[in-house]
Amino acid sequence: MKGSEYLMADKHWKQPGGPVLFYTGNEGDITWFCNNTGFMWEIAEELGAMLVFAEHRYYGESLPFGPDSYRGSKHLNYLTSEQALADFAVLIQDLKSTLPGAQHSPVIAVGGSYGGMLSAWFRMKYPNIVVGALASSAPIWQFPGMVPCGDFYKIVTQDFARSGYNCDANIRKSWKAIENVSSTAAGLQWMTEEFSLCTPLKNKNDAFGFKNWLQETWVNLAMVDYPYEANFLQPLPRWPIQVVCKYLAFDSTVSDYQLLRGVSQAAKVYYNYTGSSSCLNTSQTATGSLGFLGWYYQACTEMVMPMCTDGVHDMFEPEEWNFQAFSDECNIIFGVRPRADWAGTVYGGKDITSHSNIIFSNGGLDPWSAGGVTYNITDSLVSIMIPDGAHHLDLRYSNDHDPPSVRAARALEVKYFREWIKQAKKSSTS
Amino acid sequence: MKGSEYLMADKHWKQPGGPVLFYTGNEGDITWFCNNTGFMWEIAEELGAMLVFAEHRYYGESLPFGPDSYRGSKHLNYLTSEQALADFAVLIQDLKSTLPGAQHSPVIAVGGSYGGMLSAWFRMKYPNIVVGALASSAPIWQFPGMVPCGDFYKIVTQDFARSGYNCDANIRKSWKAIENVSSTAAGLQWMTEEFSLCTPLKNKNDAFGFKNWLQETWVNLAMVDYPYEANFLQPLPRWPIQVVCKYLAFDSTVSDYQLLRGVSQAAKVYYNYTGSSSCLNTSQTATGSLGFLGWYYQACTEMVMPMCTDGVHDMFEPEEWNFQAFSDECNIIFGVRPRADWAGTVYGGKDITSHSNIIFSNGGLDPWSAGGVTYNITDSLVSIMIPDGAHHLDLRYSNDHDPPSVRAARALEVKYFREWIKQAKKSSTS
Repeated sequence: MKGSEYLMADKHWKQPGGPVLFYTGNEGDITWFCNNTGFMWEIAEELGAMLVFAEHRYYGESLPFGPDSYRGSKHLNYLTSEQALADFAVLIQDLKSTLPGAQHSPVIAVGGSYGGMLSAWFRMKYPNIVVGALASSAPIWQFPGMVPCGDFYKIVTQDFARSGYNCDANIRKSWKAIENVSSTAAGLQWMTEEFSLCTPLKNKNDAFGFKNWLQETWVNLAMVDYPYEANFLQPLPRWPIQVVCKYLAFDSTVSDYQLLRGVSQAAKVYYNYTGSSSCLNTSQTATGSLGFLGWYYQACTEMVMPMCTDGVHDMFEPEEWNFQAFSDECNIIFGVRPRADWAGTVYGGKDITSHSNIIFSNGGLDPWSAGGVTYNITDSLVSIMIPDGAHHLDLRYSNDHDPPSVRAARALEVKYFREWIKQAKKSSTS
Repeated sequence: MKGSEYLMADKHWKQPGGPVLFYTGNEGDITWFCNNTGFMWEIAEELGAMLVFAEHRYYGESLPFGPDSYRGSKHLNYLTSEQALADFAVLIQDLKSTLPGAQHSPVIAVGGSYGGMLSAWFRMKYPNIVVGALASSAPIWQFPGMVPCGDFYKIVTQDFARSGYNCDANIRKSWKAIENVSSTAAGLQWMTEEFSLCTPLKNKNDAFGFKNWLQETWVNLAMVDYPYEANFLQPLPRWPIQVVCKYLAFDSTVSDYQLLRGVSQAAKVYYNYTGSSSCLNTSQTATGSLGFLGWYYQACTEMVMPMCTDGVHDMFEPEEWNFQAFSDECNIIFGVRPRADWAGTVYGGKDITSHSNIIFSNGGLDPWSAGGVTYNITDSLVSIMIPDGAHHLDLRYSNDHDPPSVRAARALEVKYFREWIKQAKKSSTS
């Protein structure tokens, strides 16, 4: 089996013994995460730190069985979070034993989203390898029985509600409008044209998929509602939800067709901000740098994250969490069934007090904060809230438009890093 | 795949919420460990505790692929300590959710030898599942680079040195005597008869195997040098090494044949104390309740425990630790090669300070104490030494001949158990 890829930057590294900031790669190309984690690049000099970005096996270039890696559960069997953590541990031990000056370097794990979950779990499971972890926007509690399944979509809804007049109400209304318009062939054709879809909507079933695609679009916007022009999942303007909501500021008298024209303009903010798309592709909602199939397999094995909507506290069509249906879907696609309780068993669920040196940072705008650790658990399992932040804003390059909360968060994170490094130096000399 | 077996006793369990003492099964039949862990049975009543003894997969009845379980590395692939810990975690979560009154029961892991390593590691990796662990005679540091490879055999030697006049010196001398006597056909025949061997020694190669068998015999005696008649690896008299040494108390003038007659009588103390053996079988040194093949596979994958002898500080023929030779042997037998550093990476090696609530108890007579934790690491990672104790004496039923040190050890262990239980109750109500 082929090992995992990693990137390294030692320009500012003070060897021997200078710290290592180690990005625990998540479900995508490591280069992409590397480029979207400016925070590490910006603090390398002041900490005299080496940077390592490790790719998660089965993503990017790290295909353990080459082109066969995704061929059936036999090959996919090694795609687990535990295996990824083991890979990271072995990589670090290897670097420490082969890089001159690294032997006594304290290592700090850093990650965002699933990568943040990995960095928290890495510290929990391998406290001998990493002295601490920054888990940014890491929904380690988005598992069965830990948080209400509806909170995620509630936060998405709140983001739209606060970003423009009637914005959430009109999205809530749009599902029925789609139903109505798509009930005729002429309506389907109108929608295809209005949304500039690459593949025409032909029937009810296509309309169902179309709604899912829109729902995911709103979710993605909530994740990347950054205070400046950015390109994470898509190239987007500053505060993109505000821009989107300008097209959805209708009164209750709006007609189905007017409303859907607004929705179309809103969707195009997300999919065609640069104006370079000739049509919208409803089979994709974000950058190709993410490994959707791999993540789907992980969701179908251990990363079981219940989600639900009720249409009242959120702006989506009501849909209960249905584990059995999900499990059946997994069985059809991968020939595996998810283990609902395993993540809680192996990573401790809400009972993690005995661990130490983990920062959980969360953005108030980020729907993933619903499953995050948003309060201090102990003195050394701390939560940092960034009310104006979307998905792991703190890990991004700093920007003139950054709200004070994210500046404060980053400063506090560096303070903890320094403390952990000091602790490590002390215990290695004692 | 079939799950693992477990035994349960709830006679004294105070439900709801009474504690669970959970034996983390090692490389053998769980019934045998159950019967040799009287300590748990004796303290169940005072703690109001339920007892669970969980069998390690691939041992005893817990064969995941039935009779095929040992057929090649494909089937053996799931024989790892990590998998065993995961099995234990899932079993406990399952018991908690299905046994009325167990939901809030604090669970304490208990184990001896490899089972003790598992109980320590279980607490390290699953602090959400067990509130603490008693790791009795658990050589968690008997891995590459952690302790000197010769300490194990030094302790064996010390046990013989202190148990009778010239005892270690005569065993040291016996290897050459075997060489001398086995150099002729008549000598081989004499030895076969003298030792009542089931299979005659026919050549130099047999003599080599014979020496290994004797060496293992002395090691086993050191492990079970208990202060009363017992039957752990074999039925044996009180302080068996003292009995053995009576036959080895020669002066330096002893002849090879006299010496080997003494060695034969000594070996028969171990192999034929009950007088029921018609001949000695050099292919086995201990109870059939242990799963040697499985343990061999584990040693050939992650449980790499360097051992060496020099013939000066110990009474054995000099033999260096040769990882390459061992690895080649593993490759021939199982088609696998051991990963020397993995155990240290995954279980922290000597860097375990961030964990908590583990008792490491060790016997001063036990060669495995060489790789054990024999000093306090922190306030809650504590060592209990039992100078007069052999291999996990503290876990055995109490006995009138128990030295005060083991009585004190057991009392202290129960005291820690009570503290952990109290801590758990407190944190679950807060």
